[in-house]
Amino acid sequence: MATSDSTLSSRNDGGSVGIIKPQTAIFNDLLKLKCGRTLDNYELIYETYGELNATASNAVLVCHALSGHHHAAGLHYASDQKPGWWDTMIGPGKPIDTRKFFVVCPNNLGGCHGSTGPSTVNLETSTPFGPNFPIITVADWVETQHRLGLYLGIHQWAAVIGGSLGGMQALQWAIDYPGEIRHSIVIASAPKLSAQNIAFNEIARQAILSDPDYHGGHYYLTHSYPRRGLTLARMLGHVTYLSDYTMREKFGRELKSGTLNFDYGAEFQIESYLRYQGETFSSFFDANTYLLMTKALDYFDPASEHNNNLCTALQKTLSQFLIISFSTDWRFSPERSEEIVNALLKNKKPVTYAAIDAPQGHDSFLLNIKRYHDLMRTYFNRINI
Amino acid sequence: MATSDSTLSSRNDGGSVGIIKPQTAIFNDLLKLKCGRTLDNYELIYETYGELNATASNAVLVCHALSGHHHAAGLHYASDQKPGWWDTMIGPGKPIDTRKFFVVCPNNLGGCHGSTGPSTVNLETSTPFGPNFPIITVADWVETQHRLGLYLGIHQWAAVIGGSLGGMQALQWAIDYPGEIRHSIVIASAPKLSAQNIAFNEIARQAILSDPDYHGGHYYLTHSYPRRGLTLARMLGHVTYLSDYTMREKFGRELKSGTLNFDYGAEFQIESYLRYQGETFSSFFDANTYLLMTKALDYFDPASEHNNNLCTALQKTLSQFLIISFSTDWRFSPERSEEIVNALLKNKKPVTYAAIDAPQGHDSFLLNIKRYHDLMRTYFNRINI
Repeated sequence: MATSDSTLSSRNDGGSVGIIKPQTAIFNDLLKLKCGRTLDNYELIYETYGELNATASNAVLVCHALSGHHHAAGLHYASDQKPGWWDTMIGPGKPIDTRKFFVVCPNNLGGCHGSTGPSTVNLETSTPFGPNFPIITVADWVETQHRLGLYLGIHQWAAVIGGSLGGMQALQWAIDYPGEIRHSIVIASAPKLSAQNIAFNEIARQAILSDPDYHGGHYYLTHSYPRRGLTLARMLGHVTYLSDYTMREKFGRELKSGTLNFDYGAEFQIESYLRYQGETFSSFFDANTYLLMTKALDYFDPASEHNNNLCTALQKTLSQFLIISFSTDWRFSPERSEEIVNALLKNKKPVTYAAIDAPQGHDSFLLNIKRYHDLMRTYFNRINI
Repeated sequence: MATSDSTLSSRNDGGSVGIIKPQTAIFNDLLKLKCGRTLDNYELIYETYGELNATASNAVLVCHALSGHHHAAGLHYASDQKPGWWDTMIGPGKPIDTRKFFVVCPNNLGGCHGSTGPSTVNLETSTPFGPNFPIITVADWVETQHRLGLYLGIHQWAAVIGGSLGGMQALQWAIDYPGEIRHSIVIASAPKLSAQNIAFNEIARQAILSDPDYHGGHYYLTHSYPRRGLTLARMLGHVTYLSDYTMREKFGRELKSGTLNFDYGAEFQIESYLRYQGETFSSFFDANTYLLMTKALDYFDPASEHNNNLCTALQKTLSQFLIISFSTDWRFSPERSEEIVNALLKNKKPVTYAAIDAPQGHDSFLLNIKRYHDLMRTYFNRINI
């Protein structure tokens, strides 16, 4: 659907990284989490694209957003119809050029695509963690990603990059490991959630928590699944990812059948689109992970440890920053990116800010929008390795 | 909560209409609905404030919005702590001054506060209509309100007024009965829903429809109730009624207990506020009525019968118009009101447009905002009776 938009680039901007085999790193070192709990051991599934150079100076860490995972680029098998979620951005000749960079993308701790998370069996109880899996914060992710870097022989990332919740990780990296990141690239993100953002997350959580099939989070054992709740949560999320303009352009008030049915079936195209999106998502995503991811969003607030002063929070950063916002993003509006930019400027930190005029709303960060990709290409070209 | 806002008037702008007894009008004349179905008989519960004058020239019809009802002003008993929903607007010395006007406010057909609706027993089956109650449109409401007017001896309304879905009824009145309405007052409304508006309604509907306690709408017979679904629907609605600014001012990121709990209980104030709002609402509102009201919103599109030309739809109107929008209303933004204004201007119709600068979002229309109430007072003062 996205490719029909005139603002999207139809050029073939580069090649594919080809067929990719996910890898798993096993960590047996104690992980102390922000919530006060610990994990004795955990696994992270990840993919890499390109080659790490001899000095390990060309590594780029890609951090995924709420519903993302480690499969950012390439295919899993030859006839795979669905490339990784950022395949237009990562590859030979693409903005994050794998001929120059070694790209690493893990599935975050707490995820449901292979990393240790709520659906993992807790060895102490021989049952899935479920709702007993600790709530993970953005800072916890940064710590696990840091360990993954060391495991791969990477002592400093050329860049850490992400959109939305991924951008929050890129920002936290600059704060937590200032000497180990040269560029922090924060796209369509915010320094913390607004009350409205939290409100939407809370409704999504309540949809899941109140689904009778949630069974207090122990649905793995009941052979049921809170499909209805997760479907609602995703439908709601989806509305916040799209701009009002995009919805109007894509769906307007078009009716599926051409006439009103006077019943409660899906009759406007937007209704069937949302139902499809919600139902598809709920068929493969774990509800407990969804809850956990929304909490990580709600809790992200690096200024909170610095008297609610974002400026102070960013004082010790050493990296360069690229902050990108999209004009019609109403989930994390350009003003939210500018809060980060202004705090960096006050600190006289090196920051580039691009406010991209794009009609596609929050989802823009995932799309092949020409000005956005051109900017990224130029920026990454200039990164010294 | 609202009274703490500095933009709200703290003046006592007038008196109360006092203790009001709702009345019921029984109609035994066939009602042909837009969906093609008919109702042989139906009842409308309504309240009136003030006195109808000898020439019946001072009648004002107040149309309620999605979750509203006939109790717009006054109290139901002496110690009643909760006056009608528009008590700040209607009363002696208030903007709609009951010393001058005779105000009528019915509960709409399909409602759940006393008018015939899904929870009414269908005499043909001796069970509640439930999901078999026909879907009602704004034009159907106008027809029933027209009949209520005749029943009360009102052949022309001095004004028909409403906010949000109520504003749509005021607009439809001007189209359907041009000779029987002198002023159409359309507040915080739109000439039709956007795809985003429909999307939010659809999520609310799915929350109700997918609640196992909905029982296909026949929950009246099962002694269950889709409380969870209706709670979610109302929580979502509530987010769209408040502006981002209001949420920030009221709730910010304040924590209930002061520290993060790292669990899924309500810990930000916005979460407990929304849960409370949703749960309270679901304790007294009928889920089938909620579904019906959202459909009436989705279907409202007077231009659709005129080649999607709003200008043509408004061509035969004879009333004067007052259109009011609020700057931070993102449910029905000022641009949506301006669509109506522009269509009226193109037709050279007499229209007054007020874009009120108010931080409270869509809910503004219900609040005692000084500039808004001053404007209403002046406008109603000038209406000849």
